[in-house]
Amino acid sequence: MNLEELIGISAGIFTTIAVLPQIHKAVKTKKIEDVSPTMFVILCLGVGLWTIYGILKMDWPIIITNSISFILNGIMLKIVWFQGNNK
Amino acid sequence: MNLEELIGISAGIFTTIAVLPQIHKAVKTKKIEDVSPTMFVILCLGVGLWTIYGILKMDWPIIITNSISFILNGIMLKIVWFQGNNK
Repeated sequence: MNLEELIGISAGIFTTIAVLPQIHKAVKTKKIEDVSPTMFVILCLGVGLWTIYGILKMDWPIIITNSISFILNGIMLKIVWFQGNNK
Repeated sequence: MNLEELIGISAGIFTTIAVLPQIHKAVKTKKIEDVSPTMFVILCLGVGLWTIYGILKMDWPIIITNSISFILNGIMLKIVWFQGNNK
């Protein structure tokens, strides 16, 4: 693994796991009023397109990290929508 | 501009502007208690590394979008920290 791949994979890991503390906080506190649902709609759209971009370029760091990111941001979106509608 | 570049730039625009609704909401409501600061620390780290990855590969969609993302997520981090400390 060269330096470029190492940086790509680390960058992807950080941007992928970034949403986890927010998911943890939302689940623990059940409070999401201050969180913007629009942010997670746009994020899902963006990382979805990044996944397609990675597939077109056969760039594995981009494919793997953005597809996982899509799933995690989708989970956060569900939490924000689900808890938002329960108010 | 080919399809690949179009998807790369659109993906980058979405993931870059994604934080804007959250910045807008935080500035408008002055409430950020439910927002996780850790998320924005990790996001800044991640998009910073993506920018370096883009430079190593001379991949302009990745360089442009992630450097702007770094600035915007840095702004959100400042808001979360600044308002958090004012409590």
